[in-house]
Amino acid sequence: MPNLPPATPGMPLAEVDTPALIVDLDAFERNLKKMAGFVAKAGVRLRPHAKTHKSPVIGLKQMQLGAVGLCCQKVSEAEAMVEGGIPDVYVSNEVVGARKLDRLAALAHQARVMVAVDNEAAVEALGTAARKAGVTLRVLVEIDVGANRCGVPPGAPAVELAERVGREQGLVFAGLQSYQGRAQHLRSLAERKDAIGQAIAWTGDTVTALKRAGLECEVVGGAGTGTFEIEGASGVYNELQAGSYVFMDADYARNLKADGSRFDTFEHALFVHATVMSTPVRDRAVIDAGLKAFTFECGMPEVKGLAGALYERPSDEHGGLNLVACNERPKLGDKILLIPPHCDPTVNLHDWYIGVRGMGTGAARVESIWPVAARGAVF
Amino acid sequence: MPNLPPATPGMPLAEVDTPALIVDLDAFERNLKKMAGFVAKAGVRLRPHAKTHKSPVIGLKQMQLGAVGLCCQKVSEAEAMVEGGIPDVYVSNEVVGARKLDRLAALAHQARVMVAVDNEAAVEALGTAARKAGVTLRVLVEIDVGANRCGVPPGAPAVELAERVGREQGLVFAGLQSYQGRAQHLRSLAERKDAIGQAIAWTGDTVTALKRAGLECEVVGGAGTGTFEIEGASGVYNELQAGSYVFMDADYARNLKADGSRFDTFEHALFVHATVMSTPVRDRAVIDAGLKAFTFECGMPEVKGLAGALYERPSDEHGGLNLVACNERPKLGDKILLIPPHCDPTVNLHDWYIGVRGMGTGAARVESIWPVAARGAVF
Repeated sequence: MPNLPPATPGMPLAEVDTPALIVDLDAFERNLKKMAGFVAKAGVRLRPHAKTHKSPVIGLKQMQLGAVGLCCQKVSEAEAMVEGGIPDVYVSNEVVGARKLDRLAALAHQARVMVAVDNEAAVEALGTAARKAGVTLRVLVEIDVGANRCGVPPGAPAVELAERVGREQGLVFAGLQSYQGRAQHLRSLAERKDAIGQAIAWTGDTVTALKRAGLECEVVGGAGTGTFEIEGASGVYNELQAGSYVFMDADYARNLKADGSRFDTFEHALFVHATVMSTPVRDRAVIDAGLKAFTFECGMPEVKGLAGALYERPSDEHGGLNLVACNERPKLGDKILLIPPHCDPTVNLHDWYIGVRGMGTGAARVESIWPVAARGAVF
Repeated sequence: MPNLPPATPGMPLAEVDTPALIVDLDAFERNLKKMAGFVAKAGVRLRPHAKTHKSPVIGLKQMQLGAVGLCCQKVSEAEAMVEGGIPDVYVSNEVVGARKLDRLAALAHQARVMVAVDNEAAVEALGTAARKAGVTLRVLVEIDVGANRCGVPPGAPAVELAERVGREQGLVFAGLQSYQGRAQHLRSLAERKDAIGQAIAWTGDTVTALKRAGLECEVVGGAGTGTFEIEGASGVYNELQAGSYVFMDADYARNLKADGSRFDTFEHALFVHATVMSTPVRDRAVIDAGLKAFTFECGMPEVKGLAGALYERPSDEHGGLNLVACNERPKLGDKILLIPPHCDPTVNLHDWYIGVRGMGTGAARVESIWPVAARGAVF
């Protein structure tokens, strides 16, 4: 059932079959090092999110550069990471349902496992699963710091739930999950600083209230690629969970830095390779990558290296290239690179990463082929 | 690497792990029979599109009810159908690139294979691949009847390309591919009739022009779930390619019939099963199905059986349920069924169909578990 890879090692990029998920290995490695350098300087830990890459190969590279473990968003994603050799996984999400809880607890026989909670009944169910499996699970209490998604309110409700965790045999209270997802794509730095400033204040107050109740936060976790510098410098957060920085996508690149220029701290390292399959009229080409090669909730892919060309009107297996403002006219069979609008769900559509060395040179070649091991791991 | 199925046969629906892709087998079978009845009455052939279901199990059920074969959109999708026992596949799309063409030609050793073209250079490449493999490929010339995607213009350019096909050793001209994709979701029947009326006129003229040039169209193929009744009654089209009718989705259900009521010719037979994983405030629940369980290019999923509840704000692994207008308050762990906005790319996210018998009764149970065999088959 898994699809065959669209390339073999050593193959020139131009020969890779399409659509394929291409990693620019040079840019990717620079992104990993840049983030590792940042957290080292800031004196915080990095626990990058595996929901972006779904690959223990990439996770191990992050750990070699100092990451303390990985975040996962689902139990099955955590299983795939542990199978691939990651020794420390945190499901930064609520896990509900006996079947999932049993799997999570079983995983703690093989790796260090941590999980988030935001509900008393969930604490009880988690404790039951831990005791049944004979393991101890570390638990972060999730607080809602403005994302309006999951989480209990900061302050007293968080303290109450932390105390509830502490009373549950098989569980250990380990700290706070405090992610402000809504702030990640606020375009100006001022807006992001405002939103994260509020999150930091609420989180800091909750840490203090917990301390007053005799509860220490070993972990105060949160942050994404859009805001990690702010949480990293806060003195409140000690574990950053950014994921997209490894690849970057078109959406994150629309964020702005302090001076109003585009957020280019990290480089685009992920592309979809596509073929021109039809050139019906002068100003339109059709490529073989549509709704099953990208996801579109963050807009359209950007066309690399074909100035003025706009991707438009995706259907299941087609994408249009509007060439009205482009001086070039790609020919039938030409290969095109596109920057995904949103990297996480786009990666989840593909079975293989095709790692290419020397992108942008005439000698770009396939160096590595890595499975997207946790693709479709939604359970 | 393939994920384990979220259910076992015999299991009550309520126990199926989430998110899971559920097929209401009773509604699904009624949809299959309804379409089979329509084409029998209209005196046209049905070659349903496998890009919707990506499953030879479902394809064989369609063939048992009279379908002449399947449409596929990619060579690898066609391979998966032939592996699963489908004896007649048509790649209703342009295939570009030597690697793909060699695979397509090789497939003709195992099944009856047909493919679309819209370019002279593509005809030459296809002929080369056919001769190299020692096979004969049947070819439809794609004409653009208003979709503004692929295809040559109707009339003389189509005749010219058909003659070019006829001169290429290893290829046989078999007719026209004439799909008006843009008409499928025009909401009023009058708009759809206008658009398809134009497509029928262009297609009919082209059939006549071909006949004058001594070329017979064995196949005049096109139509989708939004318009098949119009092409079916045209006297011009003889092979309908609808796919979504097997499942229906929220987007197709927004189409209107002649009397202005919703298009309910087919029933919703495909659902995503999700779990309430957080109930942070009174008017909001959070479920475990987001951007990796549905695709969102056609809007939001619809919540089944929870009047007034609105799905909103998906993130990678979360979906919000806005309960402001809903009288019920789902509890932590409750299971919810949702209708996908767009069935084709949503199916492509999942590894398994969980077939349930007796949906809507207290005795809903898992009857069958089918792999989404061509999931991710983008090559």
